[in-house]
Amino acid sequence: MKQSILPVLTCLALLGQPVSDGPSFSPAGELMLPKDYRQWVFVTSGLGMTYGPAAQANTSDPSFDNVFVNPSSYRAFLETGHWPDRTMFVLEVRHSAGKGSINQGGHYQTEIAAIEAAVKDESRFPQKWAYFGFGRGEKAEPFPANSVCNSCHRQNAAVETTFVQFYPELLEVAKRKGTLNAGFPNSH
Amino acid sequence: MKQSILPVLTCLALLGQPVSDGPSFSPAGELMLPKDYRQWVFVTSGLGMTYGPAAQANTSDPSFDNVFVNPSSYRAFLETGHWPDRTMFVLEVRHSAGKGSINQGGHYQTEIAAIEAAVKDESRFPQKWAYFGFGRGEKAEPFPANSVCNSCHRQNAAVETTFVQFYPELLEVAKRKGTLNAGFPNSH
Repeated sequence: MKQSILPVLTCLALLGQPVSDGPSFSPAGELMLPKDYRQWVFVTSGLGMTYGPAAQANTSDPSFDNVFVNPSSYRAFLETGHWPDRTMFVLEVRHSAGKGSINQGGHYQTEIAAIEAAVKDESRFPQKWAYFGFGRGEKAEPFPANSVCNSCHRQNAAVETTFVQFYPELLEVAKRKGTLNAGFPNSH
Repeated sequence: MKQSILPVLTCLALLGQPVSDGPSFSPAGELMLPKDYRQWVFVTSGLGMTYGPAAQANTSDPSFDNVFVNPSSYRAFLETGHWPDRTMFVLEVRHSAGKGSINQGGHYQTEIAAIEAAVKDESRFPQKWAYFGFGRGEKAEPFPANSVCNSCHRQNAAVETTFVQFYPELLEVAKRKGTLNAGFPNSH
């Protein structure tokens, strides 16, 4: 046994890989913002979408929302069409700009406006998924279980409580694996 | 020496990590589209930007452009503000949709329209960087060294020939490291 475990430990030390890439909580139960979430897997980006609490319907200064998920959960979803326990999404909301440098039209991303998160933790949250708003801070308490985040995700999401209908690559995976929520249309 | 290399080899075998995450070419010199580029590091996304050859100024159906870079080059840039040799960017152009599901405004991403790439390979390209259009294929020849891609990147980019002015996180890195091209304004 000693011989078979040693290379794994050596490996983790060499590559600096964390044992788990999921959520981390403070002793008080606050979710910690992962320092390296920009190196997590990018799921999608939208501009000026009006469904999210931090993405405002502001047509003159619309916000981008970049969605990231922890890499091991992304790979699990590709295999199964389901999110494993301890999946964590980070929603990074950024301001936008129009004309600048050589860009003469459309929008590109500028500074961060807010950061939010969704976490699946079945042992921690009776409703399985919880939602968090970091603002510009590094830790956040979950919104109450009856928050608008919880109810909107529960009522409108394509897979479990996640808005896979807006993640084109993963929507195809869910269709193939047959994991769309009952009643969710196959096309939109 | 044998003892110090063994754990590294064991490590690579255990974790399935490629020795290099940079570009791969066919024997004929065609760039291969990496199958896992969606798991590379996301740099930024824009909507309807008019500077790129595949991003058209179409206000009724603007395209998103998602930019990814190979992870080891991203981490090198965070440390140095420079792109190492064998850096590869993938530009994924996606169509957009407006109203759909619960979204009542703004734009979200739908199917892929085209995939392009930029590669730094000093031994392969006299001009160091080359540009590629995959369309929906899996391999691509470089555009000629006098292509509009080459000249526009050479003339307008913030760092080397890359449009770091549109990558807000990396623009801050370049400012801190002092690697913005001479004459490039510090703000835009």
